[in-house]
Amino acid sequence: MKLLEERIRNEGVVKPGGVLKVDSFLNHQMDVALFDAMGEEWKRLFSDKYINKILTIETSGIGIACIVARHFGVPVVFAKKAKSINIDGEVYDAKIHSFTHGRVYDVIVSKKYIGSEDHVLIIDDFLANGCALEGLLSILKEAGATVEGIGIAIEKGFQHGGDRIRATGIQLESLAIVESMNDQTGEIHFRQES
Amino acid sequence: MKLLEERIRNEGVVKPGGVLKVDSFLNHQMDVALFDAMGEEWKRLFSDKYINKILTIETSGIGIACIVARHFGVPVVFAKKAKSINIDGEVYDAKIHSFTHGRVYDVIVSKKYIGSEDHVLIIDDFLANGCALEGLLSILKEAGATVEGIGIAIEKGFQHGGDRIRATGIQLESLAIVESMNDQTGEIHFRQES
Repeated sequence: MKLLEERIRNEGVVKPGGVLKVDSFLNHQMDVALFDAMGEEWKRLFSDKYINKILTIETSGIGIACIVARHFGVPVVFAKKAKSINIDGEVYDAKIHSFTHGRVYDVIVSKKYIGSEDHVLIIDDFLANGCALEGLLSILKEAGATVEGIGIAIEKGFQHGGDRIRATGIQLESLAIVESMNDQTGEIHFRQES
Repeated sequence: MKLLEERIRNEGVVKPGGVLKVDSFLNHQMDVALFDAMGEEWKRLFSDKYINKILTIETSGIGIACIVARHFGVPVVFAKKAKSINIDGEVYDAKIHSFTHGRVYDVIVSKKYIGSEDHVLIIDDFLANGCALEGLLSILKEAGATVEGIGIAIEKGFQHGGDRIRATGIQLESLAIVESMNDQTGEIHFRQES
C-alpha cells in the first residue's frame, strides 16, 4: 500500500537491532485517517471472506483493529496481557515470546467472546518473527474458530515470520513489507507488490 | 446517553468492591458501532470547542479514542505505561495511583506529540477516583496544552473523582454516571441527566 510505505519512508526511524520506530502515526500518535484507508484496503483484500469478528492484541493493535472493524461492521476482541496463566478455565491463554523485550508473557481471551461459530480476521500493527501471531492462532485453534485471514500494517520481511505463516496457507495481507533497512543511512526498502 | 445506560444495565456485571464489569462491549470485546454512537454524542457535546488532538491512556481507552477521533478529524495520542520514569527529557511523565491494582505506575507521552499549540480532548473508558485523569491533566499542563474537555464512557459517580474535576471548571462529559450499584442484586442506578 503506497500510502503506508510513503509514511514509513518519510517518518519511520531505523534503529540498531532491526528496530523501526513509527511512533508519529502508528503506535504512540495514531493517524486515524490513515487507519481508515488501511481498513478500506483490507476490506477489499478480504472481500470474498465471511468475517464476523476481529481479534487483535494489546496494545498497539487495538486502535487499528477498531477502525478496521467499522469497515467490516463487526466487533473487536483484544487479547489481554496477563500476569498469570489460566487458572479458572474461563479463558484461552497462550505464551508469547517477545524478542523485543526479551521475555515470555501470557495473553488471555475470555471464552465468552471467541467460539467455534466465529470467523475471525486477525489485525495487528507489526509482524516480525511471528510469535505474537502464533499465540493468537493457537487461541483460535483452541476455540475452534475459523481463521479467515490476517491483516498486518508493517511486516519485517527479513525476519521471516510472515513467510512461515503464509506457508501454512493462511491469507496474510501485510500493507507494507520491509525487505531491508539500514540504521546507518536510514534507508528502507520494501518488497515489491506481486 | 440512554443507549450506553441500557447496555450497562443489560450486560454489566456488578462485583464486590465497587467493580463493574463491561467486558462484553467496552474493554475486552469492543462494540465499535456503540463507540461510533458515543463519538457522535461527544462531537455534539463539544461542538463549540476547537479540538485538534485526542489524548487517551493504555489500554482500554485506545479503541474508543480512535473511533471518536474520526468524528473530530484529529489524531490520537495515547499515554504509555512505562517501566521507568523520564530519564532523557524527551517525554512527559506522570505517576498514577491505581486503586484497582493497588500500585503506582508511570505513564509517559513523547514531547514530540503534545505541545503548547494543542487543544486537547481527553477520552477514557472509566472514571472512578480520577487518578488516571489527573495524571493526564498534569502531562497537558507540563506541555502547556489547552484542555478543551474530557469525555468518559462510564463514570462511577459514587467515587467522586468526576465531581472533583468538574469543580475545577473543566467540561467533563460522562455518557453514563453510575450513582449506585449493588453486587447482591446486580441493580445499577444512574445519575439523572440534568
